[in-house]
Amino acid sequence: MDPYVIRMNGKSTLPSVLDVPVNIGGRSSMPGKVKGRKARWSVKPSEMSNNTFNPIRAIVDSMKVKPNPDKTMISLSIGDPTVFGNLPTDPEVIQAMKDALDSGKYNGYAPSIGYLSSREEIASYYHCPEAPLEAKDVILTSGCSQAIELCLAVLANPGQNILVPRPGFSLYRTLAESMGIEIKLYNLLPEKSWEIDLKQLESLIDEKTACLIVNNPSNPCGSVFSRSHLQKILAVAARQCVPILADEIYGDMVFSDSKFEPLATLSSNVPILSCGGLAKRWLVPGWRLGWILIHDRRDIFGNEIRDGLVKLSQRILGPCTIVQGALKSILRRTPQEFYHNTLSFLKSNADLCYGALAAIPGLRPVRPSGAMYLMVEIEMEHFPEFENDVEFTERLVAEQSVHCLPATCFEYPNFFRVVITVPEVMMLEACSRIQEFCEQHYHCAEGSQEECDK
Amino acid sequence: MDPYVIRMNGKSTLPSVLDVPVNIGGRSSMPGKVKGRKARWSVKPSEMSNNTFNPIRAIVDSMKVKPNPDKTMISLSIGDPTVFGNLPTDPEVIQAMKDALDSGKYNGYAPSIGYLSSREEIASYYHCPEAPLEAKDVILTSGCSQAIELCLAVLANPGQNILVPRPGFSLYRTLAESMGIEIKLYNLLPEKSWEIDLKQLESLIDEKTACLIVNNPSNPCGSVFSRSHLQKILAVAARQCVPILADEIYGDMVFSDSKFEPLATLSSNVPILSCGGLAKRWLVPGWRLGWILIHDRRDIFGNEIRDGLVKLSQRILGPCTIVQGALKSILRRTPQEFYHNTLSFLKSNADLCYGALAAIPGLRPVRPSGAMYLMVEIEMEHFPEFENDVEFTERLVAEQSVHCLPATCFEYPNFFRVVITVPEVMMLEACSRIQEFCEQHYHCAEGSQEECDK
Ligand SMILES: Cc1ncc(COP(=O)(O)O)c(C=O)c1O
Ligand SMILES: Cc1ncc(COP(=O)(O)O)c(C=O)c1O
Repeated sequence: MDPYVIRMNGKSTLPSVLDVPVNIGGRSSMPGKVKGRKARWSVKPSEMSNNTFNPIRAIVDSMKVKPNPDKTMISLSIGDPTVFGNLPTDPEVIQAMKDALDSGKYNGYAPSIGYLSSREEIASYYHCPEAPLEAKDVILTSGCSQAIELCLAVLANPGQNILVPRPGFSLYRTLAESMGIEIKLYNLLPEKSWEIDLKQLESLIDEKTACLIVNNPSNPCGSVFSRSHLQKILAVAARQCVPILADEIYGDMVFSDSKFEPLATLSSNVPILSCGGLAKRWLVPGWRLGWILIHDRRDIFGNEIRDGLVKLSQRILGPCTIVQGALKSILRRTPQEFYHNTLSFLKSNADLCYGALAAIPGLRPVRPSGAMYLMVEIEMEHFPEFENDVEFTERLVAEQSVHCLPATCFEYPNFFRVVITVPEVMMLEACSRIQEFCEQHYHCAEGSQEECDK
Repeated sequence: MDPYVIRMNGKSTLPSVLDVPVNIGGRSSMPGKVKGRKARWSVKPSEMSNNTFNPIRAIVDSMKVKPNPDKTMISLSIGDPTVFGNLPTDPEVIQAMKDALDSGKYNGYAPSIGYLSSREEIASYYHCPEAPLEAKDVILTSGCSQAIELCLAVLANPGQNILVPRPGFSLYRTLAESMGIEIKLYNLLPEKSWEIDLKQLESLIDEKTACLIVNNPSNPCGSVFSRSHLQKILAVAARQCVPILADEIYGDMVFSDSKFEPLATLSSNVPILSCGGLAKRWLVPGWRLGWILIHDRRDIFGNEIRDGLVKLSQRILGPCTIVQGALKSILRRTPQEFYHNTLSFLKSNADLCYGALAAIPGLRPVRPSGAMYLMVEIEMEHFPEFENDVEFTERLVAEQSVHCLPATCFEYPNFFRVVITVPEVMMLEACSRIQEFCEQHYHCAEGSQEECDK
């Protein structure tokens, strides 16, 4: 008899498979008949998933964030410029998508690294004489997140380490730790407009260092590095022979008084993987189109790293082809005013917010120069009621219905991050509520009576 | 002096960073001054990327596929139904995308597992009394590929093994091996319409077996398992306490004489992760929208596996939001004729192709019941000129400009796979060229003279 005809309790009629013995918690419904690998079900999540840890989720989910029912909620916590509806993408961007749909040409599989024509567009858009790019230097990905994932996956083995900014975007840690890669945190200095503490950075490098992540402009700081600071960073990388992952997703999102310098344009020797995407500058983070630009003029990555990236891209096959198909028009037709308007809105909100918060005793905002964020130091000694930034922001929600992310999410306690993409009235309202909150909880620190008298 | 002011050759002017010392191949341009982790650049791809191996790419790229210049190329090799333009998606699907674009509601970040509303749509679309689904049982992914990736990543640790069909879709191996998961191949039996050799399957299971992949309907076989065969597979899984990854991307793509039974509807005890997507049935593989349906009525996966999947989804943040936003209309408005037309086209092509190839001495096609493929056995003893299926298909390109995938790509030598989505005239032309090719190369096998005389 075919043993694979299901037999149950000796009866050999066609059984319902619902009768198949199942053993949970060791209690077998068919005792003595169970042979094989295990007598009971035990399905446990992998180490990788156990090690996949999103600090923002963990902290925010455990926060008591019940807003004050008398005040409408103002969320300054999510780095998504679209949530308030005040920053729509440009109509040309939408039209480009419709054209791609209508063409009927972009429904099939693209090469896993993206259409050649789309990669050509990105290459020529970001090409410059100091950092030339061709289509072969471009890999399209499912958002900048996947760009970062692929870069880390190709550069680092489990047991190696990467250098990550503190404060910094939490995904670096999340991705690295899920892959068994250690992170070493280098410090950004608020008093120096969040420049890197280069000495400390260099002291972290050892023979297991696989790459240095430089995020410029910065989330959560809103800082923009000067040319000379970038050159010093490159000098460290060159001296220590450490390749750089440049997270430039906020590239070109800088206010008029600063200038964004793509890292690769300042170096001809350090191999750089620059990650970017449509998410922020084109205000469509949900569309999940990102890219890696491979800068390797001394052929240090060589074909091996390129091939490695291509191979890794084959695991899930790249971003949505409609967005890829629209890329050419998005890059060519989006009018300059669109970029300009976004930036002047952000700049004006940044000024508003900085001005308002700088006037509040107990808070010390750091003026941003780009991106969509502003970091605020809490002089904790003046708020003895609160243990830390998490409690501070928790209570700010409870009392004022204003939600900011505690910078513990970015490995930087005693700060909080403000997202400055909200409509101006909300920005102002939020700042005045923060002011009320701080005034209600401000205490003079011991030994600094003069401050309280002023 | 700040050591991080770049100093070069003793001069301390503001230097161009291009002068920073770079050391390639041990030749330092600044001998004796290099300290730190290494004296030279050495950037090597990770083991993960070295272990990411796509057999289709490897085999196809190494094939000599120079077509016969006198014959136009007919490619029957790519599982992309859109390449010939004869199978456009439905206008309602395109309209759904435009509506999602125009709404302006789907540009921001969705939750990493997808919008609740989109997951609700998928849940109610695939819900049935025997296998109930709610939004919480659905995870949206970047294509079915990422669905499979997440399932493997949550279920298996490096060093464990998974059971994979032979012949089977190559991505299972690619993903597993890149994660350090071993694959064990179980056999499909062509003489039994590609049913699983259950005994051999069961013999492979050991204490390190993390999951069983069941692909139904099958790529590359085009086979569709009967209800009773599926029940027997479930019985093995239940007996051995092995969870199932059901790759049902070709679900509902079966010809009128067969019926597709979602695996989960036949079991209330085996925990099943069913993977699917828009790619094949809606003919938009490039859009990269896939899903995982979690079936776990005995609570064997429990919250742990669910949470694990959610955490893993946060690494790259899900599929394009425009496609997510369009999902509701895609599922509700696509007319029945669309599905019907696709299937009757595929069925008619399958019959054509099967009939034509079955008449060719030396070939033995296996009749498909669904999906978009047909497998053909090459009686290699009649083609002594060719070493194997790779050489056979290579020469078929060289002489007849017809490109089929050698089934070595699917771990199944001496077969080749035909994609049946091509326009009918091309299908016929391809078959007659294959016939010409076989006639030109057919040799009587020793000891079977009668066959050649007939
Ligand atoms: C610094 C930084 N890098 C990368 C990303 C991820 O971008 P994407 O949404 O394209 O994956 C973000 C998103 O907030 C970010 O702030
Ligand atoms: C059996 C099987 N599973 C999964 C996939 C991947 O589907 P997607 O394009 O949605 O990633 C394919 C694609 O060919 C397939 O044949």
